[in-house]
Amino acid sequence: MSMMQKTNQYRSLALGLILAGFPFHVATAQQEPNEADVAYVRSIFDKVLSQSSCYQWLDHLCHHAPKRVSGSSAYMSAVEYTTQMLDSLGCTRVYKQPVMVPHWERGTVERASIVNSTLIGTQPLSVVALGFSAPTPVLGVTAEVIEVHSLDELEALPDAKVKGKIVFFNRPMDPTLVNTFHAYGQAVDQRGYGPKIAAKKGAVGCVVRSMTLLRDDVPHSGGTRFDEGVAPIPAAALGILSAERLSDLLKKEPNAKINLELNCRQYADKLSYSVIGEIRGSEFPDEIIVVGGHLDTWDIGEGAHDDGAGCVQSMEVLHIFKRLGYKPKRTIRCVLFANEENGIRGAIKYAEEALKNKENHIAAIESDAGGHAPKGFTVDGLPELMSVNMPDIMNWRNILAQYGAFIVETGGAGADVGELKPQGTLLFGLRPESQRYFDFHHASTDLFETVHKRELELGAGTLAALVYFIDQYGVKK
Amino acid sequence: MSMMQKTNQYRSLALGLILAGFPFHVATAQQEPNEADVAYVRSIFDKVLSQSSCYQWLDHLCHHAPKRVSGSSAYMSAVEYTTQMLDSLGCTRVYKQPVMVPHWERGTVERASIVNSTLIGTQPLSVVALGFSAPTPVLGVTAEVIEVHSLDELEALPDAKVKGKIVFFNRPMDPTLVNTFHAYGQAVDQRGYGPKIAAKKGAVGCVVRSMTLLRDDVPHSGGTRFDEGVAPIPAAALGILSAERLSDLLKKEPNAKINLELNCRQYADKLSYSVIGEIRGSEFPDEIIVVGGHLDTWDIGEGAHDDGAGCVQSMEVLHIFKRLGYKPKRTIRCVLFANEENGIRGAIKYAEEALKNKENHIAAIESDAGGHAPKGFTVDGLPELMSVNMPDIMNWRNILAQYGAFIVETGGAGADVGELKPQGTLLFGLRPESQRYFDFHHASTDLFETVHKRELELGAGTLAALVYFIDQYGVKK
Repeated sequence: MSMMQKTNQYRSLALGLILAGFPFHVATAQQEPNEADVAYVRSIFDKVLSQSSCYQWLDHLCHHAPKRVSGSSAYMSAVEYTTQMLDSLGCTRVYKQPVMVPHWERGTVERASIVNSTLIGTQPLSVVALGFSAPTPVLGVTAEVIEVHSLDELEALPDAKVKGKIVFFNRPMDPTLVNTFHAYGQAVDQRGYGPKIAAKKGAVGCVVRSMTLLRDDVPHSGGTRFDEGVAPIPAAALGILSAERLSDLLKKEPNAKINLELNCRQYADKLSYSVIGEIRGSEFPDEIIVVGGHLDTWDIGEGAHDDGAGCVQSMEVLHIFKRLGYKPKRTIRCVLFANEENGIRGAIKYAEEALKNKENHIAAIESDAGGHAPKGFTVDGLPELMSVNMPDIMNWRNILAQYGAFIVETGGAGADVGELKPQGTLLFGLRPESQRYFDFHHASTDLFETVHKRELELGAGTLAALVYFIDQYGVKK
Repeated sequence: MSMMQKTNQYRSLALGLILAGFPFHVATAQQEPNEADVAYVRSIFDKVLSQSSCYQWLDHLCHHAPKRVSGSSAYMSAVEYTTQMLDSLGCTRVYKQPVMVPHWERGTVERASIVNSTLIGTQPLSVVALGFSAPTPVLGVTAEVIEVHSLDELEALPDAKVKGKIVFFNRPMDPTLVNTFHAYGQAVDQRGYGPKIAAKKGAVGCVVRSMTLLRDDVPHSGGTRFDEGVAPIPAAALGILSAERLSDLLKKEPNAKINLELNCRQYADKLSYSVIGEIRGSEFPDEIIVVGGHLDTWDIGEGAHDDGAGCVQSMEVLHIFKRLGYKPKRTIRCVLFANEENGIRGAIKYAEEALKNKENHIAAIESDAGGHAPKGFTVDGLPELMSVNMPDIMNWRNILAQYGAFIVETGGAGADVGELKPQGTLLFGLRPESQRYFDFHHASTDLFETVHKRELELGAGTLAALVYFIDQYGVKK
């Protein structure tokens, strides 16, 4: 775009705005947007876009506590830092909730290569171990490779064809799905369950094409699950270009071998903490509204989008309310959950304690889909709870649409708040623009610099506005 | 986000999608979305997200023809390259439309500094000349600075207070406006008209705070306008941090001086070209649908977002249709306009030729707001034309909402297609997410690497779908 033409062009746009054919027209059938709510939400966004702290908190978290996987000292640094920051906001109460978490370490060696191919000789492959992978012997495991594209395809193979081999899952994420989380959801079973099935069938290792849509060779980690009674095998993710090079070779040289060398290790569970900051409600203190993300990350990268962003946005909700002098009717809790990435133990513990202490969690909101510009939110909960509250939620959405949150979807709000669902909690999940998320997800490239300040702030504003609405109107039972 | 929980979580999301309260509910009052249209738009997006060429075209354009300002040899390279690419698509006709364009050159020297301040001595300021700026004398111009925040504030000053000084416009873009184009629209009058008013009042130079929301010191250029009879003065943009440093100093030392040194130069107008590729319609060849962007850029950076993105997206529309074997009923023209940045001469010429040749342009779509993920589009045109077509447009939007284009605004579609408005053409402007656009706009940082492949492709798909709808249904008069 160019020059001064724009002065008038965009002025006219601002005045001529029609959210045509929808929100307000539909909403009026039920309820006019409350002018006080419209104004208060405006004040929330004014504040967050001009005086927020979330970006600088994220800077610190990423640069002083990167790779904060469960069981690491970096995680404990993140606990201390976020506790201090929440303390500085003047919360009613800031505390750490203890929980035992898995402790797996990547170690210092992760290497893979095509070895002694008759066509291309020995060639390195870009690789990272998957969480809960077993180590290999010291010089690695070398074996022929059997390429498959689904769990079913592997299950259908005779055990004899798999035994002693390295299974290679190579089904790409579908690039034609606009929401990249849907593409992830359709592909991630390979990483989550593939190594377990390979192990059961006698494979000596498993490699999985990275879960990303970007055409580079950065490998993306993540958890895999070996059931009770299944001895873990070495399991790793290959970069996309490495996966394609291996697949191309196997077409021409089906008995080509690869070597995989990992010295990761599983330790005993370790004491960890979720971090909680609370502003106590003035009218209905026993009704609790949670807003949160998870403080742990994978052990590569800085966990900027996953899920540093969600943590600092949730902290920012309390910060905005304090800055605005807002006195909530209900109790608002910012919860930074421990161990989402490989166990959900923090969330399970939080839900257990809530039940034990007979706490009434009316709503819980999660931000764990990256720090990009918000496009909407999901709603989840027991079916009747959702239907009785949907008219209110649509009225809130009609106000939030001005700030980017157009989409309301039903379905999973997030792994952490999901643990509260059986208690009758109404759940929300922030849904940002998804195009870039899997470029960084679980990879060394999930860095602070990839998060945009204003996009992060808009997400925080959306969370704060949702908390405000729930605080004002409560949740219908 | 973590591990295998997501498989089911996001599957349920995909199935449970409700675009709650709107598109389809509203649309049904008028018309069910046509199933064939839904399917065809799906095929457009499938193609663009898996087999497009726009990203590699942009790569070439940015790296082989950066700084393609009007009158430059880089611009002529861009003309040759895009002509070749359009030729390779099998268009009915590819041609260059000649047009005389302004020819201003930045030169080799642009420097500014605070000089001999009693408080901070001599300090450099980050600066770029504005398009159509006059040069300074060889050693620059040194003068006291008068800081103002609006055109009105400057107009109200007695000429004697301005004479011999350098006027400094320092009103920031408003960070609280969610749509950054609105913030730009409210601030850019300082750059567009400030230097002219300063010149009229006898100033010896003018510096303007860069039009950006990013807190760095990269200066952002852009055009300024000196009316007939007003002798141009040296005019430049300061980086944000430089502007703030200068402003801070002036508070303490109001008679501090700065030096500004520019050797830019205005040349005689030069022959240039817009590039046009056309697929002739099979049923109504005389009804023309334009989709386009502008091929020129400012002379710093690569013009990736402004407006390489719009050019390659427009080319991609023809590419997708060719790949899909689509035979348009109406004539579709991809127009890469010359000289949007400092004259709009290409668009003016195009509209003149259309009128002279009695061409019937039923619709024109512009992409000139960056290559980020599409959020919607604007609609512009003569008032009756807009109202009679709005029901159809809303039906189209209801289908496009699935791909991100939720917003329909009325108002300016773009500077280039705007020239067709008096001819009764219905105008559309693509509106992507705007948070990052002014980080790069008119700056050395507008680089290929800041464009995301899938976001660019989604924009191209949205343009193609709009062209498809208009081609299928025509425009009501």
